[in-house]
Amino acid sequence: MNETKTLASYVVSNRWEHIPADVRHEARRALINYVGCAIGGAPHPAVTTAIRALDPFSGERTASVIGRTERLDPLHASLMNGISSHVEDYDDTTPKNYSHTSSPVGSALFAYASANKVRGRDFVEAFVLGFEAASRVGNVVYPAHYDVGWHMTGTIGVFGAAAGVGKLIGLDEQQMVWALGLAATQSAGLREMFGSMGKAFHPGRSAQNGYSAALLAQAGFTSGERGIEGPRGFAHVLAPTRDLTKIGTRLGVDFDLRENTYKPFPCGIVNHPTIDGAIRIHDEHHPDPASIVAVRLRVAPLVLDLCNQQNITKGLQGKFSVYHGAAVGLVRGKGGLREYTDEAVNDATIKRVRELTTATGDPSITEDQSHIEVQLRDGRRLETFVEQSLGNIHRPLTDRQLEEKFRDQAVLVLPARDVETAIELCWNIDQLDDVGELVRATVPGAARVERQPV
Amino acid sequence: MNETKTLASYVVSNRWEHIPADVRHEARRALINYVGCAIGGAPHPAVTTAIRALDPFSGERTASVIGRTERLDPLHASLMNGISSHVEDYDDTTPKNYSHTSSPVGSALFAYASANKVRGRDFVEAFVLGFEAASRVGNVVYPAHYDVGWHMTGTIGVFGAAAGVGKLIGLDEQQMVWALGLAATQSAGLREMFGSMGKAFHPGRSAQNGYSAALLAQAGFTSGERGIEGPRGFAHVLAPTRDLTKIGTRLGVDFDLRENTYKPFPCGIVNHPTIDGAIRIHDEHHPDPASIVAVRLRVAPLVLDLCNQQNITKGLQGKFSVYHGAAVGLVRGKGGLREYTDEAVNDATIKRVRELTTATGDPSITEDQSHIEVQLRDGRRLETFVEQSLGNIHRPLTDRQLEEKFRDQAVLVLPARDVETAIELCWNIDQLDDVGELVRATVPGAARVERQPV
Repeated sequence: MNETKTLASYVVSNRWEHIPADVRHEARRALINYVGCAIGGAPHPAVTTAIRALDPFSGERTASVIGRTERLDPLHASLMNGISSHVEDYDDTTPKNYSHTSSPVGSALFAYASANKVRGRDFVEAFVLGFEAASRVGNVVYPAHYDVGWHMTGTIGVFGAAAGVGKLIGLDEQQMVWALGLAATQSAGLREMFGSMGKAFHPGRSAQNGYSAALLAQAGFTSGERGIEGPRGFAHVLAPTRDLTKIGTRLGVDFDLRENTYKPFPCGIVNHPTIDGAIRIHDEHHPDPASIVAVRLRVAPLVLDLCNQQNITKGLQGKFSVYHGAAVGLVRGKGGLREYTDEAVNDATIKRVRELTTATGDPSITEDQSHIEVQLRDGRRLETFVEQSLGNIHRPLTDRQLEEKFRDQAVLVLPARDVETAIELCWNIDQLDDVGELVRATVPGAARVERQPV
Repeated sequence: MNETKTLASYVVSNRWEHIPADVRHEARRALINYVGCAIGGAPHPAVTTAIRALDPFSGERTASVIGRTERLDPLHASLMNGISSHVEDYDDTTPKNYSHTSSPVGSALFAYASANKVRGRDFVEAFVLGFEAASRVGNVVYPAHYDVGWHMTGTIGVFGAAAGVGKLIGLDEQQMVWALGLAATQSAGLREMFGSMGKAFHPGRSAQNGYSAALLAQAGFTSGERGIEGPRGFAHVLAPTRDLTKIGTRLGVDFDLRENTYKPFPCGIVNHPTIDGAIRIHDEHHPDPASIVAVRLRVAPLVLDLCNQQNITKGLQGKFSVYHGAAVGLVRGKGGLREYTDEAVNDATIKRVRELTTATGDPSITEDQSHIEVQLRDGRRLETFVEQSLGNIHRPLTDRQLEEKFRDQAVLVLPARDVETAIELCWNIDQLDDVGELVRATVPGAARVERQPV
């Protein structure tokens, strides 16, 4: 088989009409979620630091960065969008391969569309195709690839960015094969970076590298013809086991977007049922944090593999601490961006509850479940069992909840009126004549700035 | 152990005085070889194509590209230098791990030095350290890493570029740890790209990514602290087996540069003994190509693993065809850049000899050896056995042969007088006040162009 060619041919030959209505709607949901996360993450020090380091190397500043006032060339804008949209670990998740696919794909496409006029339906089509390309490559190698230590959002994102941008710039099939090949040979991102800015760097660099793979292929820069399936290609080299049939099976019929999920909490997804349950206990019993003497969690063993940090001082570390998730749920009754700041992690009350929380890995508990028991000073025990985590495929966020999530993040950056404008533009993205309008609506103070010529 | 920190600490604390005199001389040899290859490869379509695709995204054009007139920002210049210096497969090889380490390291450093004033001795020191960092990371994972399908020049080059540029910009130890971590998490490059422009893209992107890793780290962009040795770090994720002791053992005492080798022929190194032997038969017997009825090779089995292409039409493919190597040696008595053009590959005489050549993998033959038997129409058999390939560690190119190799390539781009100037500058690189002078001496017509402000 020649899976790279199969995928290239599909992306190149697809038309808007081929995208089913429900998939179009899920794309809008993924995009409003993406844009909200990119705005919410835009002020993060990781973004500010990356801009400080690389701004002197920017080419012509034709692109806008979501949620930021700086203008950059579109490749650098892709990088920054990727960092901002992922840095709070608040973006989407494709349960088939546990990747956060919208971040690298959306980051490249919005950077492109902020510098080049793109119609909304062309944009949404490119997003659906880029998402599908990345996710199917992920399905080929998951779980062995992830288990080895790869951060799939980085490793597969580059394929999606290449496919999506390649679609927008009109690559032919041979060029798309090369774009995917140049994506394959740039595929990177190690889980060793978790807990540092390096994690959010992955979708950013993937977006940037996938975008440039498309540009290089368009100019005639060649790659191997079998970047995905070749004996020394992506699937064989980066995964101990693989199933290449997952590229072509029901391609154009099944869409992984249909199963996409959106995080209700800005942290590692395996913590979500615990936070959800802790909030439930908070809301039902309003325990005084000072009265809590022990919190006992029973969670899926993977949770302890990924999120076993208790002695932490940074917001980023909190995202990978199931103990911190339990503590903020119990103490504050929520787990929003403000619960994952350095300040929240060092808050004395939260810290105390975090440190008296213990967790047991229990193989009978799935990754969507959590059992929480809170022991109070007066001897009472408060217990709950979360059967399905909020935001998972069985308890999806509603459109209104997605809007609310957007709003909660965007108000940190934009005036309330601009937030509503941006939400409106997101829901109607496929009707826009120029998607750049949406990107510019996320720029603080954009209303007061003349649109720059592109 | 904490190998990332060990390596960072070594690079940061090293001083020029710590580099032994013989290593300094080998660095000059590596650099003259590097610069010659970068000049020779500069007109290659891979470089022209990459510049066409990415030039519109260049930042402030403060850097020169070796052997080209275009100016770019230093990150893009790193990419182009990496492509040009490797695209002809004519660069150096470190036999401990069969990587071509000077290309990614030199490419980043010369791009930096063309835009920022760097003293020669600081440059040579940074090159030695970057080379050593990359090569030691290679030693950790070779051969399992290569056997899986990684192109080590790409995967380890990024560490060397980060270390070398990081040294020049004065990173402290923590920043250097992050630079190496950000290098680790960008490590990429698949052997599936061999035979396409994608192969030369690897050291280019490594140079560019390592350079930007150093810039990001300097600005405070964090990575995991154990990018090399961590359980989900480079060594564990990208290699089935590894030996991390190779980072720290005799660090600062042993230098892999001492064992560096320089290719006499611009193609896959495993073809070299065959070409060498074929030239020997040509020079001794001058067989009329039309009289050749069969050529039988006995070679190391790896040769057939890597270079088993016979039905080829492109110069790039010729580099991975032991049959083409035998044919050019027998027909032309040489194997220079002109023997690896599309024209040479399609030359009727060469094609005929290539197509009547057969090869047998023989486990008793080492990768430095080749047995060649030429059957002539009149019944004669011409035979030779190459015991040690020219250019390997036992038959190194002399300083004069390196100069000759430089000259052969540089005359394709520069007037003869400028070639001699460039050679002189290479041999005296550690005496220069400004290494940018050397880079600018490689730019065609540079003498007629005012130096641009940097």
